Amino acid sequence: MFLAPRRLCSLGSGAKFLKTIRSSKFLGCSTYGKMSSKLKNAKRIEGLDSSVWTEFTKLAADPSVVNLGQGLPDISPPTYVKEELSKIALVDNLNQYTRGFGHPSLVKALSCLYEKFYPKKIDPNKEIVVTVGAYGSLYNVIQGLVDEGDEVIIMVPYYDCYEPMVRMAGATPVFIPLRPKYVAGKKWSSSDWILDPQELESKFNSKTKAIILNTPHNPLGKVYTKEELQLIADLCIKYDVLCISDEVYEWLVYTGNKHFKIATFPGMWERTVTIGSAGKTFSVTGWKLGWTIGPNHLIRPIQIVQQNTVYTCATPLQEALAQALWVDIKRMNDPECYFNSLPKELEVKRDRIVRLLESVGLKPIAPDGGYFVIADVSSLDVDLSDMKTNEPYDYKFVKWMTKNKKLSAIPVSAFCDSETKSQFEKLVRFCFIKKDSTLDAAEEIIKAWIR
Amino acid sequence: MFLAPRRLCSLGSGAKFLKTIRSSKFLGCSTYGKMSSKLKNAKRIEGLDSSVWTEFTKLAADPSVVNLGQGLPDISPPTYVKEELSKIALVDNLNQYTRGFGHPSLVKALSCLYEKFYPKKIDPNKEIVVTVGAYGSLYNVIQGLVDEGDEVIIMVPYYDCYEPMVRMAGATPVFIPLRPKYVAGKKWSSSDWILDPQELESKFNSKTKAIILNTPHNPLGKVYTKEELQLIADLCIKYDVLCISDEVYEWLVYTGNKHFKIATFPGMWERTVTIGSAGKTFSVTGWKLGWTIGPNHLIRPIQIVQQNTVYTCATPLQEALAQALWVDIKRMNDPECYFNSLPKELEVKRDRIVRLLESVGLKPIAPDGGYFVIADVSSLDVDLSDMKTNEPYDYKFVKWMTKNKKLSAIPVSAFCDSETKSQFEKLVRFCFIKKDSTLDAAEEIIKAWIR
Repeated sequence: MFLAPRRLCSLGSGAKFLKTIRSSKFLGCSTYGKMSSKLKNAKRIEGLDSSVWTEFTKLAADPSVVNLGQGLPDISPPTYVKEELSKIALVDNLNQYTRGFGHPSLVKALSCLYEKFYPKKIDPNKEIVVTVGAYGSLYNVIQGLVDEGDEVIIMVPYYDCYEPMVRMAGATPVFIPLRPKYVAGKKWSSSDWILDPQELESKFNSKTKAIILNTPHNPLGKVYTKEELQLIADLCIKYDVLCISDEVYEWLVYTGNKHFKIATFPGMWERTVTIGSAGKTFSVTGWKLGWTIGPNHLIRPIQIVQQNTVYTCATPLQEALAQALWVDIKRMNDPECYFNSLPKELEVKRDRIVRLLESVGLKPIAPDGGYFVIADVSSLDVDLSDMKTNEPYDYKFVKWMTKNKKLSAIPVSAFCDSETKSQFEKLVRFCFIKKDSTLDAAEEIIKAWIR
Repeated sequence: MFLAPRRLCSLGSGAKFLKTIRSSKFLGCSTYGKMSSKLKNAKRIEGLDSSVWTEFTKLAADPSVVNLGQGLPDISPPTYVKEELSKIALVDNLNQYTRGFGHPSLVKALSCLYEKFYPKKIDPNKEIVVTVGAYGSLYNVIQGLVDEGDEVIIMVPYYDCYEPMVRMAGATPVFIPLRPKYVAGKKWSSSDWILDPQELESKFNSKTKAIILNTPHNPLGKVYTKEELQLIADLCIKYDVLCISDEVYEWLVYTGNKHFKIATFPGMWERTVTIGSAGKTFSVTGWKLGWTIGPNHLIRPIQIVQQNTVYTCATPLQEALAQALWVDIKRMNDPECYFNSLPKELEVKRDRIVRLLESVGLKPIAPDGGYFVIADVSSLDVDLSDMKTNEPYDYKFVKWMTKNKKLSAIPVSAFCDSETKSQFEKLVRFCFIKKDSTLDAAEEIIKAWIR
């Protein structure tokens, strides 16, 4: 500390504002005996301090750990993607500010790409916003469209930022679990996790502002069928609800499945914003570029949030992304197109990790999309009674596994609200967008463990 | 539109939620006769849709216009800065996610750099957050620390995002103008714009949560003196107020002036967050990287906002910035250090543009820091009576100048609240971080105009 807190107390009339506050882990100021009452966090972020990523990424940072945790590819991104950035970095004016709502060449490329999937033209300036990752899209959408007191329906498990983002907007998340239909003897797949239609409708009411859909789904890998999406669309229309469709894994769909865009369902364009990600599309999660597509009456509020939060995204990355998109837009029907070749490459890895987990007696849920596989780890019967925390089983299990087996993963209860955590706490998520050598190392660990 | 709005009206029970809404420019949906009542913006962004940057950047995009508007360098960024990014783009793992609160090598470089200016060590993990530009820092700070109902003091003129950011947090901006002390016959400088101490104190009360300081100041170019900062510090301590110190132009201070960090004043470290910018430091505004430095009890809430808005910043840019910082940290006492060479280069440009404006009979305010010069344009007596908008004089003047003289600038009333706009509407801001050829072109336009 530059000044000991007691120094503050010796100040003139400021002292009347000083009071003893309780030692607070949240404020990160437990060392302060006394502190000004005003020098503290805003109420809107209270209770939003924990993050599974911050916690488990730190654990997995040990280089001796085989990291199947965070969704962080260790395969090489496509060469042309890296080379575009390398070239553009040397161009003076591509290192300066660009248009706030999206670099002109990037929104043009995105509109050209997505017009292939919508029955209408996409206006690059009025119907697209480029954001700081899909994460930034989710934040902008919620801040721009969701009011204090609104309700937002979230399907459990869910990508973990949905809940704090809704709470930060002063709205109430309303949770509905995806429930497993388990048939004895049959292998589990992500399509076995389904919504109960009556239960889903029971969550809608006049306060419901939005529902957050995630297909292909993280962490389950579920690819919603046309019929499942029609049910959600019907309810959105019936109850006049906005659909926030997180489709960051849109290209990563495996044999026998098809990705549908709910925005293309009748009556849904004008009530849907669809979110995509450069990080997932080109395996460059560190670029932190995403986008939201929708009708102008929904996109305009999102642009206003952008303008008052970050103003604009990084220019060299946006230009490089635009150039990379053109490479693949021009060869979308070729097997070499990255949108086609990456899922083929990942399907082999998915099959490998599913077989590996089965071979050691675990019960993996084979994903139809995305790059994660979930497995029930309870059959391993690991004794965690030494771990004296009040954390869910899966948190303790992953910490134990990272420390003792040098293999990291992500606990699935991190993707659950407090009430449903217990239903999911025997499940652990493994990421498989990894080099073969990484998967070899994981295989070695798991096989040795079981022996 | 994908579906005509009337189609919505034919839907079953959803129809009861539909009502006619007034044609709204804000929603960008004036073409919709009827629209769902729920498909609209959140209240928190109402009235925050205009942006001087969006409006005037579009005007200046015409390639025949000489652009002295937005603070966008057209000089080359340092070669080593661009080359670092070019190299790093080819490294696989530097294209993936990094630590959310700041890439490890970057926060280390920042702590090493700033330790030279503070009388204490800066903890890279607990006392720094890397953000999406200084803009993102401002947003995170305000969301993390300012509550609904709080008051935030802002000095007018001010960088234009301060006001909407405070309003988005549900707080009330309280404005105090910098007032000119004009001495007949003496040339104007930015140091002639000062705060009245009594007037400043009158703005503080028990609701005051924060004051936003900007030194060197945009748009005035004022570099606050030690005495002026001490006055602000004393009031912050007396009224227990947080100081948000925007120091993005910290290196750009001209002969005879010195930049002071208010965080280093006695009693101020624990109530100050200081914001810096890669874009301004290395003339790469398109990188959109900034940082906030302060005590952990103020930084922790900012980290929590980061974690729930964008999660992390772009990895390749962060690594390139870290490497570029090391180059200059190692030669801080050399004239070639960019922190020393850029202000020398800019001082020549400042002198040139001030002389140019004077030579045509304008009254420029010579800036002590930053890369903008303001001039009173009323003596040009341009007839704007044809322009039928209700905009302030300077908005009309800049639009007229951009269209008729092919020279763009930024109206200073864009940096004012609605009540003080009229005091500043004869002033126009010119950016001078421009190549000599750009300044030559501006000179030609201005000289021809006056002839």
